[in-house]
Amino acid sequence: MKHPTVIRPADHAVYAPTKMGKSTLFASPRLLAGLNAFEAGQEHALHAHPGQDKVYLVAEGSGVFLLDDRELPMTAGDLLIAPEGVPHGVRNPGPGRLLLVAVLAPAPAKG
Amino acid sequence: MKHPTVIRPADHAVYAPTKMGKSTLFASPRLLAGLNAFEAGQEHALHAHPGQDKVYLVAEGSGVFLLDDRELPMTAGDLLIAPEGVPHGVRNPGPGRLLLVAVLAPAPAKG
Repeated sequence: MKHPTVIRPADHAVYAPTKMGKSTLFASPRLLAGLNAFEAGQEHALHAHPGQDKVYLVAEGSGVFLLDDRELPMTAGDLLIAPEGVPHGVRNPGPGRLLLVAVLAPAPAKG
Repeated sequence: MKHPTVIRPADHAVYAPTKMGKSTLFASPRLLAGLNAFEAGQEHALHAHPGQDKVYLVAEGSGVFLLDDRELPMTAGDLLIAPEGVPHGVRNPGPGRLLLVAVLAPAPAKG
């Protein structure tokens, strides 16, 4: 994808039957922007990113943002920020799909 | 604001009568997340961020994303990415307000 261009997140969503689907919209050493797509019932377990901040935006649907001591209901249009090192996860209880824009900075090192 | 928390962007928008209004949602050395709020007729002129990538998300309203050789209409839900060094700007032709989430990585150095 050549940037800048107008991106409709739903046009780039990749849903997978067995686990959260991922797609990349933009990647540089500074920033990774992508999509996390959840079918009903799927979950991204608690995890943390040492040294990386993460911004989530709910593009479509509703779900639950998981923290180690609480759960936050979220719906389309909501923004959440997981500062570096803070364990977080996502659950889509359904019945609809859940699509998140995820921005991670700096980008993960390439393996 | 203590993160993570559920952020409804419109609740944090700051509109200003004379120019684009700005508010900050999160700031670290790695990432700055904020809001750019445009009354009808307001514009953020072409500018560039050397060494910083910027992600825009249209939270509310419609407007025009400005590039040096073209203009891209954008509306609520659209995402645009200005890679480092690419001149970009925003215009709100109106009649409604325009609210953008802007994520810049790495964050600007503090003056």
